Parts: sequence; structure tokens; C-alpha cells
Amino acid sequence: MTYETLLYTVDDRILTITLNRPDRLNAFTGRMADELIDAFDRADADDAIKVVIVTGAGRAFCAGADLESGGDTWGKHSDALAAQSADLRYVGDGGGRVTRRIYDFNKPVIAAINGPAVGIGLTMTLAMDIRLAAAQTKLGFVFAGRGIVPEACSAWFLPRIVGISKALEWCYSARVFRSEEALDAGLVRSLHGPDELLPTARGLAKEFIDNSSAVSIALIRQMMWRMLNAPHPIDAHEIDTAALSELGKSADAREGITAFLQKRPAQFTDRVSSNMPTFFPWWTDRQFRKL
Amino acid sequence: MTYETLLYTVDDRILTITLNRPDRLNAFTGRMADELIDAFDRADADDAIKVVIVTGAGRAFCAGADLESGGDTWGKHSDALAAQSADLRYVGDGGGRVTRRIYDFNKPVIAAINGPAVGIGLTMTLAMDIRLAAAQTKLGFVFAGRGIVPEACSAWFLPRIVGISKALEWCYSARVFRSEEALDAGLVRSLHGPDELLPTARGLAKEFIDNSSAVSIALIRQMMWRMLNAPHPIDAHEIDTAALSELGKSADAREGITAFLQKRPAQFTDRVSSNMPTFFPWWTDRQFRKL
Amino acid sequence: MTYETLLYTVDDRILTITLNRPDRLNAFTGRMADELIDAFDRADADDAIKVVIVTGAGRAFCAGADLESGGDTWGKHSDALAAQSADLRYVGDGGGRVTRRIYDFNKPVIAAINGPAVGIGLTMTLAMDIRLAAAQTKLGFVFAGRGIVPEACSAWFLPRIVGISKALEWCYSARVFRSEEALDAGLVRSLHGPDELLPTARGLAKEFIDNSSAVSIALIRQMMWRMLNAPHPIDAHEIDTAALSELGKSADAREGITAFLQKRPAQFTDRVSSNMPTFFPWWTDRQFRKL
Repeated sequence: MTYETLLYTVDDRILTITLNRPDRLNAFTGRMADELIDAFDRADADDAIKVVIVTGAGRAFCAGADLESGGDTWGKHSDALAAQSADLRYVGDGGGRVTRRIYDFNKPVIAAINGPAVGIGLTMTLAMDIRLAAAQTKLGFVFAGRGIVPEACSAWFLPRIVGISKALEWCYSARVFRSEEALDAGLVRSLHGPDELLPTARGLAKEFIDNSSAVSIALIRQMMWRMLNAPHPIDAHEIDTAALSELGKSADAREGITAFLQKRPAQFTDRVSSNMPTFFPWWTDRQFRKL
Repeated sequence: MTYETLLYTVDDRILTITLNRPDRLNAFTGRMADELIDAFDRADADDAIKVVIVTGAGRAFCAGADLESGGDTWGKHSDALAAQSADLRYVGDGGGRVTRRIYDFNKPVIAAINGPAVGIGLTMTLAMDIRLAAAQTKLGFVFAGRGIVPEACSAWFLPRIVGISKALEWCYSARVFRSEEALDAGLVRSLHGPDELLPTARGLAKEFIDNSSAVSIALIRQMMWRMLNAPHPIDAHEIDTAALSELGKSADAREGITAFLQKRPAQFTDRVSSNMPTFFPWWTDRQFRKL
Repeated sequence: MTYETLLYTVDDRILTITLNRPDRLNAFTGRMADELIDAFDRADADDAIKVVIVTGAGRAFCAGADLESGGDTWGKHSDALAAQSADLRYVGDGGGRVTRRIYDFNKPVIAAINGPAVGIGLTMTLAMDIRLAAAQTKLGFVFAGRGIVPEACSAWFLPRIVGISKALEWCYSARVFRSEEALDAGLVRSLHGPDELLPTARGLAKEFIDNSSAVSIALIRQMMWRMLNAPHPIDAHEIDTAALSELGKSADAREGITAFLQKRPAQFTDRVSSNMPTFFPWWTDRQFRKL
């Protein structure tokens, strides 16, 4: 797939996906949804990529759904959903197709919100692990102000990240707010000046890459996100036990402990493509159902 | 129903429910539970009401269960529960009858905690979306200090709002604490002087009313609260997709986008009584079971 | 059971469990797991114990799994898990055996993290209700840096305590961080100098003991933790209602209200061993399954 709406740049084991329609403030389209899904597929299959950073070209991160169809935008969107192929792997509204794909991803995903992020421009980041943002930038869950509702599974993600009260206040008011308010509420991890945002994101990515086993990280990502759904600690204990049983015999576990005892950095070699434990994935997600 | 324990005042599309037994510090009774349920029923059915504020008359918000039966209070309460009609719509202990009714409500609910809120006086607010409080006011989950347990479904609500550790510390200690501590823990959104509390609550309500579609808000309230219960983001994605499909053809969605493109405030006309999407409500709650 | 790795000290109704291998920085062993489970069993059965504090002997809290087997540590651990008896009450990896036992406990548990807590030394505290820590102490979820994954059901506990983003950042990076960062993230309640840590923990314990009914506290602990798992507020309402129905006739409820009306401290006499309501426990946990 050739990307029309994204840049896909790999440097030093970090993939940077840049939303790249700067003349449209990187507004989101169906094409962009398909390309994002493709890019995460490609990155998941590529052992040379260890971490993904998502950012925007130009002065915005993403201004939301592209409204070039004007008042017909949502009507056309309805028609497109009605016509959607049932055999799409991630079927349904485009925002949720993207966040579900990210949810299933096996490597850390960092959002570097370089400028305004509104509507789907903000909700798409909720399935990313960590959000960094530019200082003083504008954010908004503006859906109710357009007569629609938040999407991209944000009713599931947002209250788990900032709590139910803040999630409701932002969504009821449809208000545009500053990244400082997002920091206070825990929506973003930290704020940065324009020259510091990407370097900080890359520094964090590099810390993960330098310190940790890629197999450990892939397991951790799915363990943590999926245990948010699990009814009882025993669900985690079963995964822990199975993981320690299998990893106990792995090259990375041996290297990890040996390096620690020798007081040197570990050199991990196990790969996500070939060294995940046999019980992975341990889940089977149910199919999307049309209501 | 004529209210003996409440005031029900509608002004500029905002319903203010005032707990109104100031001589008893608005202490909670079975009658008050019934009246609150009735008031939320009435408000849900009235399209002219867009937001509800709950506050107290006089110097307290609500001092907890009325203890005028003294040492027999809880014994009598047991008898009343045993005798309770199984066909009450919200059956069970009175606090939970009220919070379950609020949970099912379709409009924003703001608690304006004007003074002391203790026991059920505080737990009843946990199902409200946003809590504002008077500065320096006394709050307490005092149940364990009376030999009973927190009610009003607060074992479900409270840890989701303030985290498990703070919820346990407050409930184990039965301590009365100040609203400043509640602010730090995220139990309340903000603190206000006596002259600022209700105006701030009304300002927030007015922001929701002026900016947003009532149909969007009704959907958002149920999407956010109910997705706290949902096992997987796909549950949200199904609702998102259905909502965008149907709302895409709605008057409010057309007005929302048109107003945005014309850079003018939107004038939403869809009504909760008649314009909710066909799949709403998408859930069927199970029946209350006596243990 | 005679403890080789713990001290078990009861003073003024508070049990202090001290991890006691100071020459090994209290490193965790299979023996320590068994002794911790035994100690919590013993404390649960003893009405004279009202609160448990867990701390470490010497300068560390717990330095993690004992690595005296060097590079073979995890391989041996795998073998031990494969050979594990299926009729252990808490079967599976040792860390999760301990946290599941604590999860099932009926009295408040306070971690007093007196010094470095790394790996299982930190994850074992996640099932404790409240964590206090020494200022400037080192903490770390270092698993991915050793080629393994967090255990002790921490994929279930940690995101519920500090949120998914912080949980992932700490676990991806395997970073050792200071207790100040843990305080900011909500992992610990408060920080203390060396002379203040245990007295503060004991002060908190004493507040619980002096103010509250032991039966109320036992119910609250299980209500709060287990309702984190419950799909709907109605699950809590059923417990609330049953609890108020039964406790309404209890000695502690009568004493609680009488003391309150007489403005004197309550003297509670009901016991966890004999006065829990008939519906307790209301749950049946499923069995551990090997993946």
C-alpha cells in the first residue's frame, strides 16, 4: 500500500507515523483510516521496529474528520457504513477501526501531539499507550457540539484514562481546552516546547528499546490492556504463570539475569515474530456485531 | 406526587432539586428516596429540562440517614427491607434505589454540595456526573463507625472515582474529612465560596445546554457510564458505529456541521423524548436479586 | 509453621509482618511465599488482630526474587511451576499466590515500604490496601529488563491503581524510579522519613481499629475490591441491601447508632470469626486453570 495521507519513517528502530495532510490540518479521512491500519499491520510484522510514535505534519496534529462534504458529511458517512463490507478485519466506524487495531498492537505506541487535536484527532490517541503534547495546544472532544457522539471506542477508553467525571464534562461541553488542562486530568503525560516534543518521545522510546526485551514488552502491552477487561486477578495470575513458565527457558530471560549479575546492559535477541510463548495470543475477541 | 422533602425548581432549562428538610440538616428518609426517584422520572420525561443540579437547603447538603428512631433505626430499616414490594422498579435499600435511578438518567447531573454531606448524604452523589463543593465543608463515609457498611452502590462507584486505596482508607476510618481532601482525591471537581457554588454549577450546566445537542448528551451519558462496565473496546465501537449511522441523518448532525462551517452557534432541535436512535436503549439490565 | 523468612509480631491488635532476610535485602523465595500465605491465614483466623502492616527488616523492603541460582533462576522456576501440586489452595507463580491470598483477606493491609522494593518486592504490595513509603527510596517494575514479565497479578492491579499509561511506561522501561514519582502517580499514599514511616502506618491502623466495626471493615474490604470486578452498580446494590438487612439487627449497628446519639466512642464487639452475615462470602471464585 502506498500512503497518501501518512509518512512512514523508520529511524534507529523507531517508526514515526506522521499524519500528512498539512494543508487540511491533517484532517481524518476513510483513506487515512485504511492507511493507519495498514501501517500498524506492517509495523507489527517487522521485528526491526520496536516502538511507534504518531505525530502530525505542520502546525496541527489532526483537526478531526475532514468536512469537505459540508452538511452532507455525516449523511455520506452513514451511507458508507451501511455499504461497508462485513469481511473487513476491523469493521465499523473508521475511528474505532483504527483504535481497535492499535489496541491489538504488540509494541509501545506514543502519541506526540504537536498541535491541535480535535474530534477523531484526539480520540484516535486514546488507544495509544502514552500521550505527550505541545504546551498550550488546543484539544477537544467536540462531538456533541456537532450533533453526534464521541467515537473511536472513546466511551470505553476515555473514562478509564481520566475518570468518568472529567470524561463527561469534556464531552457534554464539547469545549476546546488547552493541553495544560489535559495534563492536570492525566490525559497527557507531559507538555513540551516545539523543539522538545519529538526528542522527548524518542528518548522514551529509546529507553524502552535499550532496557527491555521486545518479547517482554509485547506481552506486557497485551497483559495490561486486556487485564483492564478481566473480572478477577486470577485472570492475570494464569497469564503470569504461563508466561514465567515458558519465558523461564528463553534466551532473553537467561540473558536478562546474566547481564544483571554481571552488571552490564542486557543484549536481548528474542523476536516478536518467532519467540512469543505458545499460549499467545490467549484471547479470542468476539466478532463485531451491527446493532 | 407532591414533594414533602424536596424543592423542584426549573429555571432556564435547568432543574434544581433542593433537599429540603433544613431543620433536620436534610436528613435522608424513605420518603426522600421515593421523591428523588419521582423527580428524576419527571425530569427525564420533560424535554424542557436539560440539566439537573442537586443541592441542599440551609447550611447542610445532607447529614445522612435520619436517625429519629434512635437505636432502632437500623432494625426498623431491616424490617422495611424485608417487607418491600418486589415490584418496585428500583427495589432494595433506599440509597441504591436512588443512585440506580440516577445512573439510568439521560441528562447531566451536577451535585452542588453546599455544606456537610455524610453517609447517604455523600454516597447519593456518587452516581451524579460531577460534584462541586463548598470550601472547608465536612464529608464522610461514616458507615463503619456506625456498625454498618457504605450503601447506594458506593462499593461500585467510589473506587472507580477515587481509586481503591483512597476509597478503602475513607471507609475503614469512617473519618469526617474536609472538601479540600476530596478535591485532592478527585472526588470533587472544584471548591467554591458560598456565593459561587450554585452560579458555578449553573454556568457549567449552561455551557452544556448552549453548546451541545440534547440527543448527543443523552447518548454520551449512557455510553460513558455503561462502557465502564464493558469488557472490550469493541462494545463501544458497536455503539459508536450504530450511533454515527443513525445520527448521520439527523437534524442535529446536519445543523451541527452547518453551524460549524458557517461559524455560528448551532441551534439544536432534536428531542430526547422522540429523536433517540432506534437502538437506544441498547442494554437490558438484569433484575435485582435478593441475596 | 515456623517462619524462617518473616517476623510475625502482634502489638496492640496490629500484626506487623516483617520480611526478614536482611542479609539478602529480604529477597523473595518460594519459602517466603508459603510463609506469607500462612501468616495471612493465621491473621484472618485471629479476632485479636485487626490490621496488618507489612514491612522489611534492615535497609530494604524487598529486593525482588532471590537470584542465588544465577542464570538458572528462571529455568528452575519453570521446573518448579511444572511440578507444582494442583491441590495447592493458591496455585501458580509465587507472587500471584501471595497477592491472591491478600486479595481474599478480611482486614486492612498497609504496606510500609521502608526501603528499595523491586520486582516482586513491589508487585506484592499491589494487593495491599494502602502503600506508605520512605522518602527517596528506589522502586521498580524491572521485569522486562530481565527478559520476563510483571507477575503477582500486577497486570490486573497496577493499571487500576496508577492508570494504564503510567503502568505501561514503568513496565516498558523497567526503570528504577524514586518513591516521589510513585507518590505523584498515586502508587503510594504518602512519603515519610525513616522515623515516621511505621508510626504513621500504625496511626492509620489505630484509626481504623478505634473508629470502626471489624465486621463492617471485613465487609467493606471485600465489597470494594470485588466490585472493581462487577459489571453493574446493581451488583453492589444487592450486597448493600443484604448487608443492611442483616447488620440492622446486629449488636455493632445498635452500638454504633447509640454511641453516636450519646456522643461517645462506640465499643464494637462483633467478631469476624462468628458475626459475619449469612450471605458472606457471596462469591465463588473459579479455579486456577493452567494455560
